[in-house]
Amino acid sequence: MNAVKKLKLKNDERKFICVGLDTDLEKIPHHLKSSENPILEFNKRIIDATSDFAAAYKINFAFYEKLGSKGFDILLQTKEIIPDDILVIADAKRGDIGNTSKYYADSVFNYFGFDSITVNPYMGEDSVKPFLDYEDKLIFILALTSNPSADDFEKLQLKDGSYLFQKVIEKVSRWNKESNCGIVFGATKLQELQENINSFNNLPVLLPGVGSQGGSLEEVMRLFIKNKKLNLLINISRGIIYKDNTDNFALAAKEEIISLNEKVNKLLSE
Amino acid sequence: MNAVKKLKLKNDERKFICVGLDTDLEKIPHHLKSSENPILEFNKRIIDATSDFAAAYKINFAFYEKLGSKGFDILLQTKEIIPDDILVIADAKRGDIGNTSKYYADSVFNYFGFDSITVNPYMGEDSVKPFLDYEDKLIFILALTSNPSADDFEKLQLKDGSYLFQKVIEKVSRWNKESNCGIVFGATKLQELQENINSFNNLPVLLPGVGSQGGSLEEVMRLFIKNKKLNLLINISRGIIYKDNTDNFALAAKEEIISLNEKVNKLLSE
Repeated sequence: MNAVKKLKLKNDERKFICVGLDTDLEKIPHHLKSSENPILEFNKRIIDATSDFAAAYKINFAFYEKLGSKGFDILLQTKEIIPDDILVIADAKRGDIGNTSKYYADSVFNYFGFDSITVNPYMGEDSVKPFLDYEDKLIFILALTSNPSADDFEKLQLKDGSYLFQKVIEKVSRWNKESNCGIVFGATKLQELQENINSFNNLPVLLPGVGSQGGSLEEVMRLFIKNKKLNLLINISRGIIYKDNTDNFALAAKEEIISLNEKVNKLLSE
Repeated sequence: MNAVKKLKLKNDERKFICVGLDTDLEKIPHHLKSSENPILEFNKRIIDATSDFAAAYKINFAFYEKLGSKGFDILLQTKEIIPDDILVIADAKRGDIGNTSKYYADSVFNYFGFDSITVNPYMGEDSVKPFLDYEDKLIFILALTSNPSADDFEKLQLKDGSYLFQKVIEKVSRWNKESNCGIVFGATKLQELQENINSFNNLPVLLPGVGSQGGSLEEVMRLFIKNKKLNLLINISRGIIYKDNTDNFALAAKEEIISLNEKVNKLLSE
């Protein structure tokens, strides 16, 4: 199924939470560590427990790449466990000259079979184009990220008075000929979100930064509801998958995402 | 050995050519395709033939990632074939929030054992810092890249009149507390190179874009010689490794890099 449609169907069911699988051997419950493949086992149980409630999953490549080729196997196996009707995002922040981006896209979309990827726009259109050529996928391009140093370059003011991240959003809107573009915008940047939400047009928005990074689910959700833009994903990683560190972890993750969905539904009904 | 020192020793021997291992199954000589591991076999023969003449090797991750976990194995095996005294760059263009960049650095430096990596600066200092924490490595940060769309964002003019890539170079100079930073600057951008070379200070420069992308080895090298900055790498990938497509490919690659070194030496003696 088309990736943008997958997201829309979940959003229409009032599901907006993206579960981030930032799985770290050091942080998973102790009792799993004796299993044959602890990270895969952890992911499997988290996915089984949360897939009825998640709008999407986001797999952070760095956490798997640090394990080398074995990590790439776990990544593929994890992707394959996730039910087909749920969007799965490769959080890989790729981007290179066209000839090279073509192969990154080949890896993420053909080898791993992801629906979506995060892409770094620094090198410009020809570095993003090979991802956009996959019309059925959803390409989330970094605009304003959730980290403090986003100020270093993303928030630099340009000669025409606008900021770099605004120029990125403007360009992404123009690149969106196949309606397969989205943007990444940090949930920690509430003021900039308020000031810029109307420039997003119909671009789906992926919002990392809620929870350990300090972003507020309620504040972000209220803003999108107020602006009648309900095509978004609020990513939560540690706040769901490490909610509990005992053998009760999967149930705790399930209860947490149900509780988050209820919060969102309450805001939608206000 | 410290990565910056490895590069300096090669530069002192008048070696400036970095061999890019952008190895693609579709482009390697036909007769190799029946071997057990054609890409590794190709890389091995190229490395054996060129390692006496190369200043460094650059391995482009995308070409291996498209093969999934098997590609990661070939990447590691290729890295291990390269003699220890030669700098090996992971051309991976990574960069994410600190917590994630830490794991990308762990992957590239600890799992794979690379000396150096290319990093995308878009997300700012805290996304680069986990790489810089490896004091003995060499972190090449993208400034002005070799592709046409570098104009989209990297060459945007800022409010203070400078360009984004100039601001990146300025920041990199400040981040360089451990003397382990370098910059990536496209060999295709000769005019910008001329206008900015004095702002590079002592940062080693990695220059992609010579050959198939249109950059000129002679023009770039002349500029660095004229400015007495001889701490650089000119990357050539396709122009060396695919110089010949018969079973003579390794010898052809060797003759090509010898010929390139001779050209450079002639320029140095002028």
